[in-house]
Amino acid sequence: MKYCSNCGHNVTSKIPADDNRPRFVCVECKTIHYQNPRLITGTLPVAKDGRILLCKRNIEPRKNYWTLPAGFMENGETTIEGALRETYEESCVQPIQPKLLSIISLPAWDQVHLFYQVNMVDDSFSTTSESNEVKLFQENEIPWDQLAFPTVSLTLKHYFQTLTNGFSILEDDIQWLDQ
Amino acid sequence: MKYCSNCGHNVTSKIPADDNRPRFVCVECKTIHYQNPRLITGTLPVAKDGRILLCKRNIEPRKNYWTLPAGFMENGETTIEGALRETYEESCVQPIQPKLLSIISLPAWDQVHLFYQVNMVDDSFSTTSESNEVKLFQENEIPWDQLAFPTVSLTLKHYFQTLTNGFSILEDDIQWLDQ
Repeated sequence: MKYCSNCGHNVTSKIPADDNRPRFVCVECKTIHYQNPRLITGTLPVAKDGRILLCKRNIEPRKNYWTLPAGFMENGETTIEGALRETYEESCVQPIQPKLLSIISLPAWDQVHLFYQVNMVDDSFSTTSESNEVKLFQENEIPWDQLAFPTVSLTLKHYFQTLTNGFSILEDDIQWLDQ
Repeated sequence: MKYCSNCGHNVTSKIPADDNRPRFVCVECKTIHYQNPRLITGTLPVAKDGRILLCKRNIEPRKNYWTLPAGFMENGETTIEGALRETYEESCVQPIQPKLLSIISLPAWDQVHLFYQVNMVDDSFSTTSESNEVKLFQENEIPWDQLAFPTVSLTLKHYFQTLTNGFSILEDDIQWLDQ
């Protein structure tokens, strides 16, 4: 950040009064510009036969790697609304019965990822501008070495564990990412 | 937002290519400025005798109303780190054993509130610059009509229900706020 989004003058990095960390502050109008982590919301869609839906990413980052449908939560929506919207946008799946499955912090990326387990109303899905392939996988078919993000791997592994150990919500964090 | 934080020129509101909602876009350098919901993280601190710690707000909004310690999650931290930091900053409590207790979306405020149930290592706490009173309450002493935010009321009510019904995580949303 170089310029104030309120008045267009320069910003400088300084610790405001009553604060304890540096913020971008406008030299002219004194507006303090806070920067905070962003939420990524997505789903783990389960078909009627128990298979899991994955999308092959058609966009960077991690183009052509497999992911659970997910994306940045938007202003004006709930975490569930964001997760269901992203699912439809990336796979044309109609997701129902959302159930919080994982919440994972990524402090090095200033992100928090939330995944909901959802059921698919039927087996209809399709490719979209964001996904060049969409497919259902049994557990032993999951392409573990071609998954786009570590939060996708953690959430998938946790889901399969809940099938034998009973339902629970994964609460985790990833302190650093190699990729 | 009126000016581009990258180059200082004017921004205009338009729907970028491959997008479906208006964003602020710089007329000069074409940077797209996304705006996303913010996370508030906090705790419900439980003393050894079972009483709950509340803080009377020393700052606006809702000055002099009672709240659970909470605040905006910062870049570079996990949701738990944010919740524990805010707890110490607002009450000087040393919180341990965090356990996710509630996740509540507030789409009208572009916020998501997360509360963790924590235990207090001992009964030490104190007022701070953010809290002009800090106090332990039994369930029948909670000042329900003087609570600062509806997410605080919902989280407290849910906590007391878990004491009889067994532990669960509250997943909820508040579509509109009167205050």
